Amino acid sequence: MRLEQHEARRRFSSARVARLATVGEEGRPHVVPVTFAVVGNVIWSAVDQLKPKTTVRLRRLANVSAHPAASFLADYYDDADWSLLWWVRADGTGRVVPSIDDAPEARQALCARYPQYAAQPPSGPALAVEVERWVGWAGG
Amino acid sequence: MRLEQHEARRRFSSARVARLATVGEEGRPHVVPVTFAVVGNVIWSAVDQLKPKTTVRLRRLANVSAHPAASFLADYYDDADWSLLWWVRADGTGRVVPSIDDAPEARQALCARYPQYAAQPPSGPALAVEVERWVGWAGG
Repeated sequence: MRLEQHEARRRFSSARVARLATVGEEGRPHVVPVTFAVVGNVIWSAVDQLKPKTTVRLRRLANVSAHPAASFLADYYDDADWSLLWWVRADGTGRVVPSIDDAPEARQALCARYPQYAAQPPSGPALAVEVERWVGWAGG
Repeated sequence: MRLEQHEARRRFSSARVARLATVGEEGRPHVVPVTFAVVGNVIWSAVDQLKPKTTVRLRRLANVSAHPAASFLADYYDDADWSLLWWVRADGTGRVVPSIDDAPEARQALCARYPQYAAQPPSGPALAVEVERWVGWAGG
């Protein structure tokens, strides 16, 4: 069954991890897992400190700079019972924020959601995606 | 740390669910969760019988027909210990197979992986993506 926008947004907002799809060179899709926080109608994700800042890691930022359309997915999978599956997709338009220091509300939301960020707040660039549509589906 | 291609392919192949990113109208990214089986260097996913065949559900097929580039992601998230996280991305070129009846090896692989498919084998269209690159990363 299709989920109402409100319920889709609620389920997405409570997920711990999402996948971010962007479009890169030659129109190729690109998809990475991200931690995130929803503030108002904007999904924020930081480029955290866990991984070295290689060019590969920043491809999502280059992609969004060139092609602002972005799509996030949160989903639940249950191997034993497919009637429990659900997913929510959030389609929107992204922008790169050079430093999350300039978005204190977003940084605070990320720190409130993830103890790892509370211990070491994100810094550096972040991605802000204004959601235009929440689309969701649940089995059962 | 970056994963070797072999290890990336192994982790992806053992995942139970993946996310498929394609490119749609106006170059917008689109992402959906999928069950799948890897046969040789091809990732197969069926349009299963769990959900009504709305136009929305078939968008991934329309997208791949128009823009063959496709990207799959399998990942592991651990809320308590981010050093355990890993992900694998498989970038490739897709094609729509109008009936999975014409790909018995792929159908068999899907049925062998998922009891739900063994009980009710997939029919109808399927997506076959020839992988050009396995890219992976693991924390720790």
